Amino acid sequence: MNIEQLGFYVAMAGIIAFATSAVLAVAERRVDLFSAMVLGVITAVGGGTVRDVVMAQPVFWAEDLSYVWVAIAASVATFFGYRLFARRLIFRVFLYVDALAAAMFAIQATDNAWDLGFGLPLAPVILGVTTSIGGGLIRDVLVQRPTLLMSRELYAIPVLAGCILYTLVLAFVPEHRTLGALVCLAITFGLRAAVIHWDLRVPDWATMGHGRE
Amino acid sequence: MNIEQLGFYVAMAGIIAFATSAVLAVAERRVDLFSAMVLGVITAVGGGTVRDVVMAQPVFWAEDLSYVWVAIAASVATFFGYRLFARRLIFRVFLYVDALAAAMFAIQATDNAWDLGFGLPLAPVILGVTTSIGGGLIRDVLVQRPTLLMSRELYAIPVLAGCILYTLVLAFVPEHRTLGALVCLAITFGLRAAVIHWDLRVPDWATMGHGRE
Amino acid sequence: MNIEQLGFYVAMAGIIAFATSAVLAVAERRVDLFSAMVLGVITAVGGGTVRDVVMAQPVFWAEDLSYVWVAIAASVATFFGYRLFARRLIFRVFLYVDALAAAMFAIQATDNAWDLGFGLPLAPVILGVTTSIGGGLIRDVLVQRPTLLMSRELYAIPVLAGCILYTLVLAFVPEHRTLGALVCLAITFGLRAAVIHWDLRVPDWATMGHGRE
Repeated sequence: MNIEQLGFYVAMAGIIAFATSAVLAVAERRVDLFSAMVLGVITAVGGGTVRDVVMAQPVFWAEDLSYVWVAIAASVATFFGYRLFARRLIFRVFLYVDALAAAMFAIQATDNAWDLGFGLPLAPVILGVTTSIGGGLIRDVLVQRPTLLMSRELYAIPVLAGCILYTLVLAFVPEHRTLGALVCLAITFGLRAAVIHWDLRVPDWATMGHGRE
Repeated sequence: MNIEQLGFYVAMAGIIAFATSAVLAVAERRVDLFSAMVLGVITAVGGGTVRDVVMAQPVFWAEDLSYVWVAIAASVATFFGYRLFARRLIFRVFLYVDALAAAMFAIQATDNAWDLGFGLPLAPVILGVTTSIGGGLIRDVLVQRPTLLMSRELYAIPVLAGCILYTLVLAFVPEHRTLGALVCLAITFGLRAAVIHWDLRVPDWATMGHGRE
Repeated sequence: MNIEQLGFYVAMAGIIAFATSAVLAVAERRVDLFSAMVLGVITAVGGGTVRDVVMAQPVFWAEDLSYVWVAIAASVATFFGYRLFARRLIFRVFLYVDALAAAMFAIQATDNAWDLGFGLPLAPVILGVTTSIGGGLIRDVLVQRPTLLMSRELYAIPVLAGCILYTLVLAFVPEHRTLGALVCLAITFGLRAAVIHWDLRVPDWATMGHGRE
């Protein structure tokens, strides 16, 4: 198995994690199978779709439908088998897979935007974060849950850190691109894993208006 | 009147139905005329706009502004004349026109995406459903109503069934394309009409988590 | 300083106004810095992004990152310094800068769409309004505040009036384009300034359903 194949399998694991987490997020809302599939697919491919549209690139899932098929399959499986996730262990494993997927999609999107010379050096960072969290934002808006932006969850900040770091690699040490990508991926995932492991949240003093009212 | 002209008139009736239903949906919210027009237009052309953007096609309403003019006119008329719809009969007629429009836009979009060879065979189905329900989703999000995805209304499932069926026609019996389109249109509309007539809803047992908690 | 440079500085002032108002709008929600930046940037460049995507043009901020840098800086400054805005005077000054920005972005977008011959004569008006209010709509949806469309605030109607007027200038007296743009800008800003100064709102009788229930 070469590096490209590995990337493909990790991406598919990521799609599964995104779609599964989407369906779990609406589990108490008594949605039907159709809604579960729509929300699963939108969460899995929504961020990347916004990225492609903004960059005026062909949307990635139309060129390789595996992304959508896998998202549909994961959504259906979660719809029927979601009780499994009540088991704390499996749920936690999924959190880590989701973190890996978010990190990987972000670094990949940053890399891709950089190659296209799209709005360097800032736009690749923006598109990396968009790819990571865009699908989840659309899902939350569609089901009227508070979005990530309103929560204290430290989800996007590790991703932002990783994308900025990788942009610095691309700008200053482009000859170490592959190594840099792997290191940034590891750092992004590591930060997010630490957040999950120690259940870290944005502290009060770091929010707007703390101690001033 | 040839078949193309017929299609145009049915499309305009559909635009009217979508815009009117949008304005009726916010009738109790005391919106002003500007908001009514914006919501009417977005509901009428929003789904198709998302479809065109995803397929990187020119947006359909910029090439023929009739769609927008008709949506504006229908929104204004509904704003001033909405009491008419308090009459049960007229309201029900509109439900059926809306169902016909949803079916037609879906089949048309599936057909169009297929012709463009866009992500066959799955993407045409996705774009058919998107065209049908996208505008309504955007409207509900903008006015903070629960979206279709959170309701038990059987709106999108007939549309999905019709798009899948029509994709099978295009894949396996392309020589009967026109007949197939009409049959799929009839089936989609028929399913939705049955839903309206008998006031069918997604049963409890078909929702996530039923009987398992 | 020539007219183009002036336009650039006014645009930057507008971006600051949009980003600042976005962060102020979520001040009581205890958002963190990341969310403040995301909401500030989306509000500042969101409307123009939707416009560019619909017109299939390259998104404007990727070609000149100043827009995003300035939006980020304004968001960060507002996050830390928002107590300043508790002072009524400064807050009111910002309302007027925001009004000027909304007017300018709208007229500019109308002008741009007209030049591209995009869906004349209606689409330039639609895109002018979209550019002005689109970013704010996306922000409100992401933080689950009632959108402009649901409020009695007279924000979009002056913009709509200005865009329609400017379209008439472009259609009937194109030889007075520059003068026309300045006059329409002044009228749009003037109307909005009057709304702010006298705290005007959509009256009851102009909303749907008034006096009929």
